Amino acid sequence: MGKVVTLGEIMLRFSTECGTRIAQTETFTAHYGGGEANVAVSLSNYGHQVAFASKVPDNALGEAVKKHLNRYGVDTSYLLKGGPRLGSYYLEAGIGERAASVIYDRAGSSFAVMETAEWDLTQMFAGCDIFHISGITPALSEAWKKLTLELIKTAKQAGCLISFDVNYRGKLWSQKEAGETIRAILPFVDYCSAGKLDAQHFLEVPAYNGTSEDEETTYYYQEMQKKYPNISVFYSTKRKVHSASANDLIGTLWAEGNYYESQCHLIDPIVDRVGGGDAFAGGVLHGLLNKEDYQKVIDFATAASALKHTVHGDCNQFSQQEVESFLAMGSGKIIR
Amino acid sequence: MGKVVTLGEIMLRFSTECGTRIAQTETFTAHYGGGEANVAVSLSNYGHQVAFASKVPDNALGEAVKKHLNRYGVDTSYLLKGGPRLGSYYLEAGIGERAASVIYDRAGSSFAVMETAEWDLTQMFAGCDIFHISGITPALSEAWKKLTLELIKTAKQAGCLISFDVNYRGKLWSQKEAGETIRAILPFVDYCSAGKLDAQHFLEVPAYNGTSEDEETTYYYQEMQKKYPNISVFYSTKRKVHSASANDLIGTLWAEGNYYESQCHLIDPIVDRVGGGDAFAGGVLHGLLNKEDYQKVIDFATAASALKHTVHGDCNQFSQQEVESFLAMGSGKIIR
Amino acid sequence: MGKVVTLGEIMLRFSTECGTRIAQTETFTAHYGGGEANVAVSLSNYGHQVAFASKVPDNALGEAVKKHLNRYGVDTSYLLKGGPRLGSYYLEAGIGERAASVIYDRAGSSFAVMETAEWDLTQMFAGCDIFHISGITPALSEAWKKLTLELIKTAKQAGCLISFDVNYRGKLWSQKEAGETIRAILPFVDYCSAGKLDAQHFLEVPAYNGTSEDEETTYYYQEMQKKYPNISVFYSTKRKVHSASANDLIGTLWAEGNYYESQCHLIDPIVDRVGGGDAFAGGVLHGLLNKEDYQKVIDFATAASALKHTVHGDCNQFSQQEVESFLAMGSGKIIR
Amino acid sequence: MGKVVTLGEIMLRFSTECGTRIAQTETFTAHYGGGEANVAVSLSNYGHQVAFASKVPDNALGEAVKKHLNRYGVDTSYLLKGGPRLGSYYLEAGIGERAASVIYDRAGSSFAVMETAEWDLTQMFAGCDIFHISGITPALSEAWKKLTLELIKTAKQAGCLISFDVNYRGKLWSQKEAGETIRAILPFVDYCSAGKLDAQHFLEVPAYNGTSEDEETTYYYQEMQKKYPNISVFYSTKRKVHSASANDLIGTLWAEGNYYESQCHLIDPIVDRVGGGDAFAGGVLHGLLNKEDYQKVIDFATAASALKHTVHGDCNQFSQQEVESFLAMGSGKIIR
Amino acid sequence: MGKVVTLGEIMLRFSTECGTRIAQTETFTAHYGGGEANVAVSLSNYGHQVAFASKVPDNALGEAVKKHLNRYGVDTSYLLKGGPRLGSYYLEAGIGERAASVIYDRAGSSFAVMETAEWDLTQMFAGCDIFHISGITPALSEAWKKLTLELIKTAKQAGCLISFDVNYRGKLWSQKEAGETIRAILPFVDYCSAGKLDAQHFLEVPAYNGTSEDEETTYYYQEMQKKYPNISVFYSTKRKVHSASANDLIGTLWAEGNYYESQCHLIDPIVDRVGGGDAFAGGVLHGLLNKEDYQKVIDFATAASALKHTVHGDCNQFSQQEVESFLAMGSGKIIR
Amino acid sequence: MGKVVTLGEIMLRFSTECGTRIAQTETFTAHYGGGEANVAVSLSNYGHQVAFASKVPDNALGEAVKKHLNRYGVDTSYLLKGGPRLGSYYLEAGIGERAASVIYDRAGSSFAVMETAEWDLTQMFAGCDIFHISGITPALSEAWKKLTLELIKTAKQAGCLISFDVNYRGKLWSQKEAGETIRAILPFVDYCSAGKLDAQHFLEVPAYNGTSEDEETTYYYQEMQKKYPNISVFYSTKRKVHSASANDLIGTLWAEGNYYESQCHLIDPIVDRVGGGDAFAGGVLHGLLNKEDYQKVIDFATAASALKHTVHGDCNQFSQQEVESFLAMGSGKIIR
Repeated sequence: MGKVVTLGEIMLRFSTECGTRIAQTETFTAHYGGGEANVAVSLSNYGHQVAFASKVPDNALGEAVKKHLNRYGVDTSYLLKGGPRLGSYYLEAGIGERAASVIYDRAGSSFAVMETAEWDLTQMFAGCDIFHISGITPALSEAWKKLTLELIKTAKQAGCLISFDVNYRGKLWSQKEAGETIRAILPFVDYCSAGKLDAQHFLEVPAYNGTSEDEETTYYYQEMQKKYPNISVFYSTKRKVHSASANDLIGTLWAEGNYYESQCHLIDPIVDRVGGGDAFAGGVLHGLLNKEDYQKVIDFATAASALKHTVHGDCNQFSQQEVESFLAMGSGKIIR
Repeated sequence: MGKVVTLGEIMLRFSTECGTRIAQTETFTAHYGGGEANVAVSLSNYGHQVAFASKVPDNALGEAVKKHLNRYGVDTSYLLKGGPRLGSYYLEAGIGERAASVIYDRAGSSFAVMETAEWDLTQMFAGCDIFHISGITPALSEAWKKLTLELIKTAKQAGCLISFDVNYRGKLWSQKEAGETIRAILPFVDYCSAGKLDAQHFLEVPAYNGTSEDEETTYYYQEMQKKYPNISVFYSTKRKVHSASANDLIGTLWAEGNYYESQCHLIDPIVDRVGGGDAFAGGVLHGLLNKEDYQKVIDFATAASALKHTVHGDCNQFSQQEVESFLAMGSGKIIR
Repeated sequence: MGKVVTLGEIMLRFSTECGTRIAQTETFTAHYGGGEANVAVSLSNYGHQVAFASKVPDNALGEAVKKHLNRYGVDTSYLLKGGPRLGSYYLEAGIGERAASVIYDRAGSSFAVMETAEWDLTQMFAGCDIFHISGITPALSEAWKKLTLELIKTAKQAGCLISFDVNYRGKLWSQKEAGETIRAILPFVDYCSAGKLDAQHFLEVPAYNGTSEDEETTYYYQEMQKKYPNISVFYSTKRKVHSASANDLIGTLWAEGNYYESQCHLIDPIVDRVGGGDAFAGGVLHGLLNKEDYQKVIDFATAASALKHTVHGDCNQFSQQEVESFLAMGSGKIIR
Repeated sequence: MGKVVTLGEIMLRFSTECGTRIAQTETFTAHYGGGEANVAVSLSNYGHQVAFASKVPDNALGEAVKKHLNRYGVDTSYLLKGGPRLGSYYLEAGIGERAASVIYDRAGSSFAVMETAEWDLTQMFAGCDIFHISGITPALSEAWKKLTLELIKTAKQAGCLISFDVNYRGKLWSQKEAGETIRAILPFVDYCSAGKLDAQHFLEVPAYNGTSEDEETTYYYQEMQKKYPNISVFYSTKRKVHSASANDLIGTLWAEGNYYESQCHLIDPIVDRVGGGDAFAGGVLHGLLNKEDYQKVIDFATAASALKHTVHGDCNQFSQQEVESFLAMGSGKIIR
Repeated sequence: MGKVVTLGEIMLRFSTECGTRIAQTETFTAHYGGGEANVAVSLSNYGHQVAFASKVPDNALGEAVKKHLNRYGVDTSYLLKGGPRLGSYYLEAGIGERAASVIYDRAGSSFAVMETAEWDLTQMFAGCDIFHISGITPALSEAWKKLTLELIKTAKQAGCLISFDVNYRGKLWSQKEAGETIRAILPFVDYCSAGKLDAQHFLEVPAYNGTSEDEETTYYYQEMQKKYPNISVFYSTKRKVHSASANDLIGTLWAEGNYYESQCHLIDPIVDRVGGGDAFAGGVLHGLLNKEDYQKVIDFATAASALKHTVHGDCNQFSQQEVESFLAMGSGKIIR
Repeated sequence: MGKVVTLGEIMLRFSTECGTRIAQTETFTAHYGGGEANVAVSLSNYGHQVAFASKVPDNALGEAVKKHLNRYGVDTSYLLKGGPRLGSYYLEAGIGERAASVIYDRAGSSFAVMETAEWDLTQMFAGCDIFHISGITPALSEAWKKLTLELIKTAKQAGCLISFDVNYRGKLWSQKEAGETIRAILPFVDYCSAGKLDAQHFLEVPAYNGTSEDEETTYYYQEMQKKYPNISVFYSTKRKVHSASANDLIGTLWAEGNYYESQCHLIDPIVDRVGGGDAFAGGVLHGLLNKEDYQKVIDFATAASALKHTVHGDCNQFSQQEVESFLAMGSGKIIR
């Protein structure tokens, strides 16, 4: 078991019932989540000691965030209270051919308007094995661009391994801006979640010009590895979107010059796709913390992500043992 | 953008939750709809000026109908209030192999018992591009058989194009009675929604005796066209029912001697099938009003119908732009 | 029947179920409303021609606002689309001794950040009998302080009567700032909703130093009238809060030197208090537009407000005839 | 324990949630009930053998009625299936000062259009102690006016006591028509539920011209008794409507020249008032069947009615023992 | 039509909504059911006279069980009231790859702690055609092991045919214990529901060592028949679990030396799998009671089971006619 | 702020919706709670460091309990997992005159069947200010009778103050048995929640024979104090039950020879009464830990209890600041 700090924004998600549009709904389901918070919950579920650092308003919504995290055993000592508002977004669930649609209302949030690292970093990073952060945070403001890099450097100096999820959001910044920032961060990173498009757009890997789909994934990992030999593990998922209700999911991982791939999970129907990637990242970090062999790491992480798709809300609700039983059993069988 | 009048009955639909039967349910979901009203909503969503003419009781249910239509910007100046009751029906949602089942309770409704055209027709048809009506209306009573024909003739004289949806309901009248009435109407029609079975049973087209499924559709359109050269556009859908939860849908259209067909949409799962045909008709009329090329007309209409299947309720909830984005994007992808 | 324009912000309200706190809820009920929009709905329900002018984002939430207003027949020609976001707030329903609590999240809304009057004012005020606006609007920004006064002057010049609801919100501006602004507005006003505290804090009426509760209300009206002889009608409610679930409500009105008061309504239980004041204002304006005698005006308006407390959501759901029947009948009797 | 037959119409009630109007609701709660059916359920709950005779359509709604009655142990051997439709009505729950409102949609129901008594009456009345019917049934049609009288006579001849609930509904027939019919029925009646207004309007009792509220009730019972000495028990409730949410309820009974009155129940809040009178009648008949002393009869019946007001749906959900415990305990105490 | 007695435990099932885990849910759906009770409901739906014998506590939960059974016309004369508690279990619905999970809380129930057959067996078995019981009952206690055999013998002597469903539950007893008990029962059985695993583990049939899947089923039936020539009909389903949401289902039956198999039903999506096997058994017994030919028996039973999967709750909600229409129609078609 | 350990059983409560009976409900709301757990949550809400010691099964229900407590920041290090089951009970909400009714299903729970104190008591009581336990625990078994006393003695020796809530449950043990056990415990107690009936039945205080209601409360406190001079604070509530929906609540406290009483709270309507006493106890202990003056202690505690009645679920959802604002404000006022 390890000790982990994740840091990022956490938002209130307003979801509609499946089959009802935002413009017609009379109720919204409320979920609290964000990439780094979701990773924290996953790791806490698996028995690690995890703190989530962020900032939320000092009102009932901030309190709801705190209670949400506490529920899963996440340490909220570094969840600051103050600032103007909680970021939010509206999600209209997709179904069949129709994709989900999202309205962001995250500007001006308590986290986004932070100008300095208000946490006691010495205390926060003390004894911490992994510091996990994503590419969404530096996209929030000029201040956050600088802060993100500083936090990573501070954590590194404090002896943490750095876990970074590229997580590009085109609605927040341009590819050019993102690329510059990400390339400044990567030399400090140990574990990196990045896929084929990330490799091309931000890590400046030339496009693969072969024809083999299998080779392609390996090619990008190899090229990224060449550019950033400091990164010991790369990972990402390959998702085939049959429809908003049915996806194939395969997890891939590159470590020590070898490529690992999970079995393919057919997720049908999808209950809630939000947080599927975070459950995957949480699963990978869990395996790395426990020094499992890489095949087991990627199998576990992909199973965890597949399970996340079967429950409402952003965060993984499954224990290590439940993920492992799921891996061991076939699809859909009951024991009575 | 055009100006359209649609006329017909609008009913209160009582639906059960999926997985619950009518005989056991403790709640019903209420939706207001009817073929012509649903077409009106679609066209209003796409920016056309649409009035829906009908008659509903002067009570809270009639008021609910008015508010429902107003919500989508449909002009309710010709929604008369009075008469005995609002027609209704109960729909037990189908699922998988089990088909939906319906109990009609529409007899004696304010609309069905009308004896004369109580609207100011001169005003109603003034400047109107299309008058849309269906084969359900003449099926309601002897009076409506006559009234329907008179309304069509009056509209024609006022300069409207006539859009007619055959929409045969075996629970309302016999094939013989329907055939006679429909054949009296068709000489005045410009746009006609009619499929293979309509061609055989009501337009007296001999059954196709070839073996090619592709040829078959064309054959029926050609034969219908021969009989009614006045009709400039025929259209209908080909639906393959895998189960109550999964259907293939293809839109087809015949105009100026050519056959047009949309791509095939796999609708899985189906949220609510009611109004799928009306969304298709609304899409076709929209394209015709905007004088789009026919391939675009049928692509748009079929996409609109596919989208309708993904939302609860009778009426299409999507704007022109949303239908077009859906056509442009693949299945089920999100943009973040 | 008259023609009215109301202008102001409209927001999305997130409400919890009674007995559930914001920090624990898993769902929110969504209602769209705002003082001026609610007045518009009331007047439209009573048969007047009403337009609501505002600005909402060009997304599904803006569309929801438009559909909400259309549903009640309110003209949305002056509902602009654009800008950053829809203002919102969270309401935790009060019950018994426990008061409701509110979290505002309205800063930076599409309406609040407007810098100029983007509407075609000539067209908007043409033929308009009453222009209704409230003291919330000038509180939103420096720009709005100026714009509010300009709009009022423009409307006045176009021949509208000006209806102004003081509606002081301490969370938006100071009493000093509010007082200055309101005193600049009042010389242009014809109908004014203002109570005892408004008189003291913003109209600079010295506090009543007598002992008679009856005299007190009259005193304030008289003094306000002296300061602003241009205002022909003052009105407000006297509410006695037994608990969050039970209130006494009396409507009062001052016109042509006379004081009018409705009967007392015991509202128990209160279903939803939000919009109760707007329903009252809508009732008063309805009576004034129809030139009813003042006693009837205040009776109708107070009954309308009492009825509003019995339904969920911000807006009055009752027709003129329903309010009048309610007045005519005793409390709680059914006719079968 | 006794054997009872009740006969009448049973309808589907569509109710809105409290605080939501019919014209805005998206769901209806479904309850099956009718005066005579509700009495049957009460008596079955108390252990009597009860059959309910009626006619419902041969579809899922008719099946739902059958299952509803079976659930409470009511014998459905005389629940015929066939005819056009199930009668229904819409109930908008009242709250506080606002009364409930009702839209009837019962015309043309399978029961209402019956022309003859389609039951095997010999079998149905064999061994039956009480035949219970109400004044709603003869109001349904000319045929039912005759049939009702015939049924009563047949039951009488078969040895049943006749229980008749006047239950005047002004929406179904005039006072004159009702009076004539009722006066033809009363000579055959043994137990009669009739109040002060019934006495005046249908039994032609001159209005009481004293001032004592206590004497008044006794006066009417005495006068009715004089006119119909064949009736051994008269009963009714005195209800004081504080609001739609709070009522006082007192049960009164006249038998063998004596007047009996229950304690006053303050029912606050009222959950569902529908069926409150039927629960009272069921309680009276139960006491009479068990030959309890009259004070106990009226106490039990009024308690049963008060309890009915605390549950949703038309029918009493309480056993004899539960009603008796309720009588024995004070208000609102729990035993743990 | 026949007369049947089924006997066993009935429990309260607490289910979560699909997509919500037991550890996070705020509500549970309540269903009452158990293998033998579910068979009773099916048979009652098809018009047979069925009594269900069991024991439930004398409280509101016991009353709920009684009302549940009464609703479907099942005779509850042998539903005893008393004992400590109602057994219950929690079901977390499976979805896609994730299987359902169950927590049993059935120990110490009123039924499980019975020591003697408290029913009047002479009366209970009088005129009864079939006595149906399952392998769950003897697994509950040592007392029930003896009682089960005694009940079967008593029923046999009273002239009933014995229907036995092996229904092994590994959480209740060991294979060894089960095998001994079951082998003591089988010599008295006439109709037996047992599949391939039952044959191997309890009937001591050696494992099939061929390669043909078709032959395999026949092999096991043949071998079981050899061991128990007294059993006239064997039946079971072959279920292929694609996922928790999609299963293939084929019914198989062995009678008079011949093998019968239904068409394959693709059940997708599955609404509620609980009771699917009981609906199948109910369908088989119905066919046997009505002396249908065996192919019709197995077709009907499998269709009934497929339909059960489309509704919530343990028990089949379909009449004989509805099952037959379903068989006659294709998948998912509506008639309007 | 202090450090507290509470110990006791925690159960799953199944509640019906108001107006729906247990025997008819189709859903149950799930709440986890128990007297000592609820006190723990209250104290954690007020900022104290609190651990709750108990034992729950090692399944999803045990996990749900853990997550419930974590959510409120309660330390679950001493929440053991194992044993047969989670105790539960069913609560049918009372309303108006009708009292709530309860079905217990708590026998044989993981906590109730404990034979030894399985916790590391040295660690658990280290640095702990108060150990809180109630009279429900020794009522569970003979083992628990002994264990309770041992735990109290161990805590005492470890330097904890002992807080004991008599909390007599007549369904668990006789008054005689309870009296003996309680009298053995009280010599070790510092803070005791006990009312008039407790004084009479368990502390052997002779019944008050005066007539003054005010004197009566004081009398009992004085007599209890005489018998147990070791107890420094006695407290309890006086509740006047107008109905299940409306209660008057007054808090009383006896300390250092003085009597303290809160204002009277009229709680109308009551949302959920369960846990009202625990919220009161939690409020008292909070005040004592913070060494507030006694009047403030009792005012705060009673306000906390009144607030608890306005929310669903067993546990208090209000912070110290919210309780204090509530005390400061009048009833039902909003600040906007």
